[in-house]
Amino acid sequence: MKLINTIKETKDIINQAKNENKTIGLVPTMGALHTGHISLIEKAKGMCDFIVVSDFVNPSQFAVGEDFDKYPRTIDEDFKKCEAAGANLLFAPSANEIYSKGYSSWIEVQGIASLLEGEFRPTHFKGVTTICGKLFNITSPKYAFFGQKDFQQVSVVKKMVIDLNMPLEIISCPIIRDTDGIALSSRNKYLSEETRIRALHISKAIFKAKIMAQEKNPVNKILKMTFEEIKEGFPEKIDYVSIVDCDTLLPTESTHNAVLLIAAYFGGVRLIDNTLL
Amino acid sequence: MKLINTIKETKDIINQAKNENKTIGLVPTMGALHTGHISLIEKAKGMCDFIVVSDFVNPSQFAVGEDFDKYPRTIDEDFKKCEAAGANLLFAPSANEIYSKGYSSWIEVQGIASLLEGEFRPTHFKGVTTICGKLFNITSPKYAFFGQKDFQQVSVVKKMVIDLNMPLEIISCPIIRDTDGIALSSRNKYLSEETRIRALHISKAIFKAKIMAQEKNPVNKILKMTFEEIKEGFPEKIDYVSIVDCDTLLPTESTHNAVLLIAAYFGGVRLIDNTLL
Repeated sequence: MKLINTIKETKDIINQAKNENKTIGLVPTMGALHTGHISLIEKAKGMCDFIVVSDFVNPSQFAVGEDFDKYPRTIDEDFKKCEAAGANLLFAPSANEIYSKGYSSWIEVQGIASLLEGEFRPTHFKGVTTICGKLFNITSPKYAFFGQKDFQQVSVVKKMVIDLNMPLEIISCPIIRDTDGIALSSRNKYLSEETRIRALHISKAIFKAKIMAQEKNPVNKILKMTFEEIKEGFPEKIDYVSIVDCDTLLPTESTHNAVLLIAAYFGGVRLIDNTLL
Repeated sequence: MKLINTIKETKDIINQAKNENKTIGLVPTMGALHTGHISLIEKAKGMCDFIVVSDFVNPSQFAVGEDFDKYPRTIDEDFKKCEAAGANLLFAPSANEIYSKGYSSWIEVQGIASLLEGEFRPTHFKGVTTICGKLFNITSPKYAFFGQKDFQQVSVVKKMVIDLNMPLEIISCPIIRDTDGIALSSRNKYLSEETRIRALHISKAIFKAKIMAQEKNPVNKILKMTFEEIKEGFPEKIDYVSIVDCDTLLPTESTHNAVLLIAAYFGGVRLIDNTLL
């Protein structure tokens, strides 16, 4: 496997793979790879012959005061994990390589990007859609693989791809959880042992909500349980607990085609989680 | 030559051409084709094996009160002209085919897009960059051909392509003028014989400015002459007469790497013209 830092070299290598009729798969990441990311690579291997993993902590999707500076960077370990998982190329550009002097072009999805995460992180998805659009143009994959853990992100990127006629398909892959139930996230590294135990009330709520939906409980009852369960972990703040339609991301009264979405702070760490109902 | 209305069919035909190792060239137009457009097709023929002309009056680049409704639509004549010029495919989608229900994704270039045209038509370039991004994704050309008549448009689209790493090259082609000097434009159809004569003061100013620059006259003197020349045609309004740096589009005191840009109304018709100095 190769570690490449420049756009030009990445394009050259991918063009060569395309000339050999290989199907390109892209796994976009911000590094600090965990088993969730590896599951994306594994999924990609089943559908593609040439797997590109991008490893870039994208400054434009962090607002001032968010955790851009302290976001974990573990490029050496990431390389080993990608190689072991069978990826073909690790693309790890610098910020200057991606956003050169005078950079000024942005891709923005309105509507679904302004809800939920968009309310609390108003510039976040503009950064996400722009970097994804750039990575898609650089690597020209047939498929790009995203984790369902960032449910709204997947929805927003899918919307961009359809609206802008981008020539690829977005593949959403299941959330991977640790043995204690917590959804895997690079940000879990920030959690102390004590905080992590408190944060587990999020996944507990997720599991209970799933069962309550199967048992045909109404949406308001599931929401009430979820709030109460999370509050037992004493979060500093709950940004949202919402049951929304999977397509519109608007609040729904029905559990049909619905997803429960949660964002809350534990020990200063903003965690998100979700489950289809 | 084929006339195609759907994105899917267009993609299929282009994929087939690519499988035959053909180089794709795109000539994006809003129809009402004139000799200026034909010169783009001719240029494309010298560089590509498969020429796609798109013919779409893009609603998102017109503001309320602009001439979207009365913009000339001449698809049958356009077809004949494209065929005669040797294009391979005329892509003429409906507005619904391009902007389906719930459409909400936009590409925006900041900085150079906010100047000049951007001051007077603040939403214009967002519509232009979005439709160009979509057309590039649909037709995946190696080259796309634009007329230098829309100088700032070429700059903005080039900036988008570079910033977003789009895998194509923008080719800017010279302004084509009628025998009386007027720059060819689909909007010239709106001009009465009397108004056209008044509007000719724009191209007269252009020719004089070019000579004055060759004779090393200072920028302020060239600007003064240009204003005075245009005013002799009794325009209802001059949006701008500016000499700007070709790269930054910011006003410059030097004629080096500079372009004179003009936008003015004659008989209710907004005309633009320019010349490199």
